[in-house]
Amino acid sequence: MGPHPAVAAIRLAVRRVLHDILTEHSRTTDAPATPPAVLPTPSTGATPAAYDTALEPPYELPGATPHERPPSPLVLVACSGGADSMALASALAFEARKLGIRAGGITVDHGLQPGSDLRAEEVVLRMRELGLEPAESVAVTVGRAGGPEAAARDARYAALDDAAVRHGATAVLLGHTRDDQAETVLLGLARGSGIRSLSGMAAVSGAGGRYRRPFLQLDRQTARKACMVQSLPVWDDPHNADPAYTRSRLRQEGLPALEKALGKGVVEALARTAQLSRDDADALDAWARQAEAAVRDSAGLLECAKLYALPPAVRRRILRRAAIEAGAPAGALFARHIEEVDRLITGWRGQGAINLPGKVVAQRQGGRLVIRQG
Amino acid sequence: MGPHPAVAAIRLAVRRVLHDILTEHSRTTDAPATPPAVLPTPSTGATPAAYDTALEPPYELPGATPHERPPSPLVLVACSGGADSMALASALAFEARKLGIRAGGITVDHGLQPGSDLRAEEVVLRMRELGLEPAESVAVTVGRAGGPEAAARDARYAALDDAAVRHGATAVLLGHTRDDQAETVLLGLARGSGIRSLSGMAAVSGAGGRYRRPFLQLDRQTARKACMVQSLPVWDDPHNADPAYTRSRLRQEGLPALEKALGKGVVEALARTAQLSRDDADALDAWARQAEAAVRDSAGLLECAKLYALPPAVRRRILRRAAIEAGAPAGALFARHIEEVDRLITGWRGQGAINLPGKVVAQRQGGRLVIRQG
Repeated sequence: MGPHPAVAAIRLAVRRVLHDILTEHSRTTDAPATPPAVLPTPSTGATPAAYDTALEPPYELPGATPHERPPSPLVLVACSGGADSMALASALAFEARKLGIRAGGITVDHGLQPGSDLRAEEVVLRMRELGLEPAESVAVTVGRAGGPEAAARDARYAALDDAAVRHGATAVLLGHTRDDQAETVLLGLARGSGIRSLSGMAAVSGAGGRYRRPFLQLDRQTARKACMVQSLPVWDDPHNADPAYTRSRLRQEGLPALEKALGKGVVEALARTAQLSRDDADALDAWARQAEAAVRDSAGLLECAKLYALPPAVRRRILRRAAIEAGAPAGALFARHIEEVDRLITGWRGQGAINLPGKVVAQRQGGRLVIRQG
Repeated sequence: MGPHPAVAAIRLAVRRVLHDILTEHSRTTDAPATPPAVLPTPSTGATPAAYDTALEPPYELPGATPHERPPSPLVLVACSGGADSMALASALAFEARKLGIRAGGITVDHGLQPGSDLRAEEVVLRMRELGLEPAESVAVTVGRAGGPEAAARDARYAALDDAAVRHGATAVLLGHTRDDQAETVLLGLARGSGIRSLSGMAAVSGAGGRYRRPFLQLDRQTARKACMVQSLPVWDDPHNADPAYTRSRLRQEGLPALEKALGKGVVEALARTAQLSRDDADALDAWARQAEAAVRDSAGLLECAKLYALPPAVRRRILRRAAIEAGAPAGALFARHIEEVDRLITGWRGQGAINLPGKVVAQRQGGRLVIRQG
C-alpha cells in the first residue's frame, strides 16, 4: 500500500523539483549525468497510483553510488514550523534520502514576538527529527522599509541567501502553495499596474534560480493533511489570522467571499492566471527590449514617429524602461505616469515637460522623446 | 454656476464619445469636418470647472448650420431605466442638442417578468421626456443557450443591432460603468484562461465600432447621483440583487469583501487592469498572427522546431488559433488543452495524438504538428 494521497502529492511535488535541480547540477559540475527521466504531468490531484509508477525505482547514478561521488548537492528548506513548510521539510527529507542528496533546513527567527527564539529552536529540533542536516535557526532584525510585511520578507530572504552561501547549498525550497499564489495574484490585481503584477511568484527565482517553490500547484489543504497523517506537529502563526495584514484579510475574508460568489475553482483560476500572465509579460518584455533598439536614432534618442508605429503595449513598456533607466524608481512609477508620457507620442498637441518620480522629466523635442533626470 | 459635479462628469464622458463619433462620421461621409478640438484627459473626477472650460463653445460646423446639413448622425442610447442608463440617456439628450446631432433611445423588453412590457413603456415615456426621438421599446424572446445571463445578453444585442440598422444610427451608447467593468474582470479571472478574459468590455465594440461605453471610467455612484440631482426616477432591476446570478453575488458580496481586504481602490485597479490586459492581449495576438506565417512550411504545416524557438506565450496563441481553425469551438478550448498540445513541441517523448474539443486531433508527425478534425 502506498502512502496517503496527501503525502504522495507532497513527495511527488518535491521529487519533480529535486529532479530539475539534479539535472541542472549535473550540467554545471563534473558529477555524472542523471538519466533522462519521464516525469508525469504536474497535477495537484496526484494519486498514490501515479506516485507509485512515477520515477520508480529511484534515480540510479551510472558508474557511481552516491557515497563515492564528489559531494552531492545540498538542498535546504526554509521552514517556519507552519503546516506548509513542515510538509515541505518532511517531503524533502524523504525524497533526498532516496535520491542520495543532502538535505538541510533553516528557520528564520524574525524576533517579532516574545519567545520567538524558543519557537525557532523547537522548529530546529523538528527538522533534526526529520533527518535534516544542517538544521539551524537564524535570527534577523526586521527593519521598517516598505511596511511590516515587506520588511520581514526582505530580512528573511537576506538570511536565507546568506545561509545558502554559507552552507554551499544548491537550492532553497520554499513552501508557498497555490493558495499563497492566489493571494499574491489578488494583491497584484489591487495595484492595477498590469500583467507583470498578476504573475505572482515564480516556481524558480532568485540568484541563479536558487529559490524553488515545489508546492505552487498544490493546495494548502493537502499540505495540512500531509502533516496530520504523518503526525507532524505544526504551528499556526497568529500573524496569518491578524486582520492588520492585508494578506490575512484576503485569506480570511476576501478570498472566501470571492469563492462564494464565483465558485470553488477561483484559487486554481488565479494560479493559472499567474502562470499565463508571467509568460505573456516575459514575451512582451522581450519584444520591448528588441524594439527599443530599433526606435532609437544614431544619437540614442527615441524617435517619436517610430514609437507611434508600435503597439501601445510595446511602446509603453519601452517608455517605462526608459524612465527607469533615467532614474525613476520602478516602485513609484505608475501606469498613469506612463500614459501621460505616451500622450506625448499619441496625442501630441504641444504639451510641456512631464514630471516623473525621481526628478525624471520627459519631453518631446524635435520629433524625439527625451527622458532624463532634470 | 455650473451643473452638479456628477452631472458634469456624465456629460463630459458622453461629450468625449460624441466628439469621437462626429470625427469618425465626418471622415466617412461628405459632411464638413468638425474642427479639431482639444479634449481634456479622461477623468472620473471631472469637476465643474473642467467641464466649463472643455469644448466651450459647442462645436461650430464651418459653412453650414446643423439644419442645412445632410442628415446629422443619429446616436441611440440603450436604456433599461436603471440609474446608469438613465444618467446616460439624460447626458446624451443634453449633449446631442448642443452638438446638433440627433439622439434617440431604445429599451429592450426581455419579457422575463410579468409586467415587463408596461415597464418598458414607462422607460419610453421617460426617454421622450428627455427629448430623445426615436424612443422605442423592443420586445425580445430570450432563449436558453449559454445560461440565462448570456441568453438575455444575446437577445438584447440582436435587438439593438436591428434597431441601429432600422434607424440608420451611427452609434449605440451603453451605460456600463467602471463597477461593471471591475465585475467583468473578476468574472474573467474566475475562468483562469489568460489575459484576454481579463480585458473586460471594450470602450468601442461591435460591427464598425457601433457600441460605445462612455461610462467605462465612471463609477456607478456618480451615475446614481446624477439621476438624483436631476430628479430622474430610476428603476432598480431586482435581478441585480438576485443571488442566483453570479454577477449579482459578485456585486453584493464578492467585490465588497475584496474592497474590505484590499482597500477602496480595487474597482479602479480592476478597470485599469482591463485596459492594460486588452492592450497586451492585442499586441500578443498581432505577434502570433505574424509569427504563424513564419512557422509554416511550404505545405502550410506547422514546423515543430520553429515553434519551439518562439516564446511560450506566442507559441500557445498560434496553437490555439490552429486548433480553432481546425474546428475546435473556442469556448470549449481551455488552457490545459493548449498546454497538452504544447508539450508535443516542448516535451516531445513520442506521445500519441491529443484529442481536443470538436473532434479535433493534434499530433506530431515527422517534425510537423498536424492539427485537424479527425
